[in-house]
Amino acid sequence: MAKPPVLTPQAEDFPRWYQDVIAKAELADNGPVRGTMVIRPYGYGIWERMQAEVDRRIKEAGADNAYFPLFIPMEYFQREAEHVEGFSPELAVVTIGGGKELEEPIAIRPTSETVINSYFSKWIQSYRDLPLCVNNWSNVVRWELRPRLFLRTTEFLWQEGHTCHATYEEARDYARRILFDVYADVMVNVLAVPLFLGPKTARERFAGAINTLACEAMMRDGKALQMGTSHELGQNFAKAFDVTFLDQEGTQQHAWQTSWGVSTRMVGGMIMTHGDDRGLRVPPVLAPVQAVVMAVRDEPEVLEKTAAIAAELREHGVRVQLDQRVDVSFGRRATDWELKGVPVRVEVGPRDLAEGNVTLVDRIDGAKTAVHLAGVATAVKATLDNAQANLLREATEFRDARTADVTTVDEAIEAGATGFARIPWSALGDGGEDRLGEHAMTVRCLQRPDGGFPDADDEADLVAIVGRSY
Amino acid sequence: MAKPPVLTPQAEDFPRWYQDVIAKAELADNGPVRGTMVIRPYGYGIWERMQAEVDRRIKEAGADNAYFPLFIPMEYFQREAEHVEGFSPELAVVTIGGGKELEEPIAIRPTSETVINSYFSKWIQSYRDLPLCVNNWSNVVRWELRPRLFLRTTEFLWQEGHTCHATYEEARDYARRILFDVYADVMVNVLAVPLFLGPKTARERFAGAINTLACEAMMRDGKALQMGTSHELGQNFAKAFDVTFLDQEGTQQHAWQTSWGVSTRMVGGMIMTHGDDRGLRVPPVLAPVQAVVMAVRDEPEVLEKTAAIAAELREHGVRVQLDQRVDVSFGRRATDWELKGVPVRVEVGPRDLAEGNVTLVDRIDGAKTAVHLAGVATAVKATLDNAQANLLREATEFRDARTADVTTVDEAIEAGATGFARIPWSALGDGGEDRLGEHAMTVRCLQRPDGGFPDADDEADLVAIVGRSY
Repeated sequence: MAKPPVLTPQAEDFPRWYQDVIAKAELADNGPVRGTMVIRPYGYGIWERMQAEVDRRIKEAGADNAYFPLFIPMEYFQREAEHVEGFSPELAVVTIGGGKELEEPIAIRPTSETVINSYFSKWIQSYRDLPLCVNNWSNVVRWELRPRLFLRTTEFLWQEGHTCHATYEEARDYARRILFDVYADVMVNVLAVPLFLGPKTARERFAGAINTLACEAMMRDGKALQMGTSHELGQNFAKAFDVTFLDQEGTQQHAWQTSWGVSTRMVGGMIMTHGDDRGLRVPPVLAPVQAVVMAVRDEPEVLEKTAAIAAELREHGVRVQLDQRVDVSFGRRATDWELKGVPVRVEVGPRDLAEGNVTLVDRIDGAKTAVHLAGVATAVKATLDNAQANLLREATEFRDARTADVTTVDEAIEAGATGFARIPWSALGDGGEDRLGEHAMTVRCLQRPDGGFPDADDEADLVAIVGRSY
Repeated sequence: MAKPPVLTPQAEDFPRWYQDVIAKAELADNGPVRGTMVIRPYGYGIWERMQAEVDRRIKEAGADNAYFPLFIPMEYFQREAEHVEGFSPELAVVTIGGGKELEEPIAIRPTSETVINSYFSKWIQSYRDLPLCVNNWSNVVRWELRPRLFLRTTEFLWQEGHTCHATYEEARDYARRILFDVYADVMVNVLAVPLFLGPKTARERFAGAINTLACEAMMRDGKALQMGTSHELGQNFAKAFDVTFLDQEGTQQHAWQTSWGVSTRMVGGMIMTHGDDRGLRVPPVLAPVQAVVMAVRDEPEVLEKTAAIAAELREHGVRVQLDQRVDVSFGRRATDWELKGVPVRVEVGPRDLAEGNVTLVDRIDGAKTAVHLAGVATAVKATLDNAQANLLREATEFRDARTADVTTVDEAIEAGATGFARIPWSALGDGGEDRLGEHAMTVRCLQRPDGGFPDADDEADLVAIVGRSY
């Protein structure tokens, strides 16, 4: 008799599957104020590892962490015309403080270009102060009418990097360096999420940027998720906030700037790239628990061996959970660990033990293997290594199979029903973007025909990656 | 000719010295909204290390990180009577979101007992779910009328831990464990700040707690700084938010709880414990830069040797900054590194080099030593080890010299002009606390006469540590 599925199957209702898995794997809950989010310990453990991986690479790229305030005077937003237009509708505003009505309302930061630039203008005097590269880990607030956990929440956690450079070229190169060496490296090699990388079209740019570079991934419903962006800000904010420096010739110049961010949205991307009908599949590098050692039954030898195996794995640097909750049915526990996407289960039962074996279950491909006790650590580590690579390969194959090469907008719209289309920019153009918009599709990024990152003079033969998106 | 001092001398005006050193060492700036703070990269580098040290110990104590929202419905505060009374006057309130007046105003969290308990009540069913220990790194907002950077800011960064236990005893023991194994261990062994540890008197408790345990330090002006607190909440919040569990006998019980926090205030405590008239003195364990290698003059051999020494120190795991800014005067650079409190300077000049030496300058005691090139790494590491121990010893001696044993309230008040007094609780009592209050003094914590942590039945012969405080 088939058991009812633990989760709504993806093919039946993907958004519902997403909600289910977040709740049942105990990743997050809705907050008490609509649109906000409680990140539960298991979900936060995944985010924490993403954060550490991003943070290390940001530091290697030469940016230092700093902290800028949550509160921004409303009038700061007025100073950059596009920026205020982009963010005003999403602001949360504090009007009462310390029991009194405030004279000047205060915005909760939706992003910190304005406040950070007001400090850059104080801190920078000469070319010697450049490049100045800072990064801020924080929470930001953007009022969301249709919130979805991790993907669009009124409050989310992120980092925002902000840099000042002496020349256009340096700023352009730094924005790319962050895109490739920090974001793409983490997403591909840690999250195991394959990416399309490239600039956005003019209409999809960040409010106030001259160029927005994006990391675009395909979710298992064929929709795109923008996983992170790196912006060239040109001199727009430098002019609005008077960020100037004395160059080597003694001339006053405006700085060239970048800003870039990734957020808890990456957690949502990881869930929707790898999850299946049994639950999450967490890449081993990120997994709070890489291997669970389960006692099948309440027998002294079983309990003793599970503890010994867990200890041995821990010594080998594996993040292990020991599951000796023998008062809960084995089936229910196994289902729970599957739901949580723990990459490897080591199941220890009396029957296997009698033959000196345990059963190793690979969450990624579901394979069950009998492994001799002496070889458990080696087998677990090999399975973890394979799991990381398998997830990336599987996701890449999925995405490529659902990315159609097309030559007309009609074909692109058809492909958009199940995935992405790759279409020559010359066949699309501004009018084509309008038509895509009627079908809830957008240009996700532009690329060279070979998938490479376009240079300024490549415009003639660019291709656009188009699709529906979150 | 004596140069004018870089900082206002501590003896002349301590608060002014504090402001000066924060500005000139580039630790922090005032934010654009009154009471808020920009933590600059150098200050944040210090905070980041404190954070990592606290975080590691919190995890060792069995608590997992999670994230709870910034936004709390106003009505949550009403549910615990003392809590609402304590925090209402300090709330910042959002009344506009997404361009519209909100139906229900939203409080920015000043602390998260209310919202976290509303989730505990969902997550906890039975004794099997206990203990439940979570920790949240975040920003909180408490409206400050007299803000001071790091010490009292409207927004500050902190961690707040919240735990649920099955019994009073377990909760009591956990609150102490955090106080000793996490907070005191970090403050004493990382920040090199000696502490008085003990419970607060009833009137000094956290709003809603049944017992507040505190870490109290003496600053160099003789005033106390509360560096961190760990609270026993009893069942107050569990009752207000219905946090119950089925015990092993099948009876519904309210959970016993703790909460505990440390914040960016620790940075202020470190500054005021160790700083001197030349600037900061940063304990090596915390220092973003442990050693600076300075080229005295623009000569090829000097530049080459400074680079080689920096590389060698880096290989030995020392956090090094190479200073080859020979276009800035050596004196000015040396003064700057002193201001920033970098523990060791390695000064490399042509005269020393001719004899195969460099000059090693110890920021803590100002000692200058000629060291042979071959022995630089060993000498720097020894100096760093000593610096950490010396700072703690010096601060302990300072505090003990300024802590008077007294027997009357009058004597305590006199001692309070320059430091702390230790007075029998029986000689002070509730009425004594009133009198101290008239002189801006409070009981910082209670102890056993031997300095030990009091047990419940020690009340008869407790002593109170009293003083003025930040």
